[in-house]
Amino acid sequence: MSEDHVNAEHAEAMRALKAEREELMKTKTLEKGLLLVHTGDGKGKSSAGFGMVARSLGWGMQVGVVQFIKGKWKTGERLFFSRFPDQVRYRVMGEGFTWDTQDRERDVAAAKAAWEESKAMIADPTLDFVLLDEINIALRYDYLDIDEVVAVLTARPNDKHVCLTGRNAKPQLLEIADLVTEMTLVKHPFEQGFKAQRGVEF
Amino acid sequence: MSEDHVNAEHAEAMRALKAEREELMKTKTLEKGLLLVHTGDGKGKSSAGFGMVARSLGWGMQVGVVQFIKGKWKTGERLFFSRFPDQVRYRVMGEGFTWDTQDRERDVAAAKAAWEESKAMIADPTLDFVLLDEINIALRYDYLDIDEVVAVLTARPNDKHVCLTGRNAKPQLLEIADLVTEMTLVKHPFEQGFKAQRGVEF
Repeated sequence: MSEDHVNAEHAEAMRALKAEREELMKTKTLEKGLLLVHTGDGKGKSSAGFGMVARSLGWGMQVGVVQFIKGKWKTGERLFFSRFPDQVRYRVMGEGFTWDTQDRERDVAAAKAAWEESKAMIADPTLDFVLLDEINIALRYDYLDIDEVVAVLTARPNDKHVCLTGRNAKPQLLEIADLVTEMTLVKHPFEQGFKAQRGVEF
Repeated sequence: MSEDHVNAEHAEAMRALKAEREELMKTKTLEKGLLLVHTGDGKGKSSAGFGMVARSLGWGMQVGVVQFIKGKWKTGERLFFSRFPDQVRYRVMGEGFTWDTQDRERDVAAAKAAWEESKAMIADPTLDFVLLDEINIALRYDYLDIDEVVAVLTARPNDKHVCLTGRNAKPQLLEIADLVTEMTLVKHPFEQGFKAQRGVEF
């Protein structure tokens, strides 16, 4: 088959595909604030959340971020997004991983304070997008009441996007979410002895 | 069991876990530029790449981005990261999805031009992190030669991080990657009739 023939067949197939897609897109008419969950044991749950923060900022939106866990860490995302205080309200509330604090009461108190901040952001009509980073960790250890979290998320303003990250998302969250992605670990450099590296992992 | 008892047991378990983690971390000593692949049919492949761009910028790194597909789209990520021309070299090379262009020769030419730009960024010692967004789509349709792409990535400078995104990553890429994440679709608002929305999806 000649190159011209290949190209002509391609163009014909793409015209058909485009027509099909246009029909499909006519049925996609709804708009509302979405509830997104990134879970699973693979990489990319938080970074996909921060990528959405960047996209939202590109469109001129106002963004809120609550980090539930990485309190004492200096992270690239915090260093970067803190540069835009007019567009991003950034709160780092956690005190580190449970094995670092070794203090359950302090962990619970930190998680509750982070949740209070989260509720305020979800209710605030000036914020378009709210990222609750690693909240699933706090929920997993029952530092927060899942029923209250579900109630607040379900009653959120209609145009508010909220993204929740962290492995082991509770089934009650998956149920009320509009979009759920599971990040699955296929291969990780840690297994070959590599350290977590700036820019890539934090 | 009293609350005090629960807290004391928690602290003891966390001390043991911390000791175990510290032993483990001693074996994680290597540092080098990583080759990352985000694939799968779920959301978050590109946004996790853009999240890493933000992290890298937070650490003062220099970043290159080549977008292989979304040429004619106005996207939040482009609008946002183009604000930092001193830190981000941003190139949008594709002309849209195959069903939009309907022109295979033009798609192939656009992919090849994007790859030339990618090679220059990978070779450029002033760039720390390079994101090749949706390159997997161009590879899937054989618009680029996978063997050449593998050769260039394998021979990249030792300290250069490169992230490749797009569904249907070629097995040859997974083989040479340091980190592979599969984003798996669990639930998508499209199925309920929602449009792709600013900030979240583009």
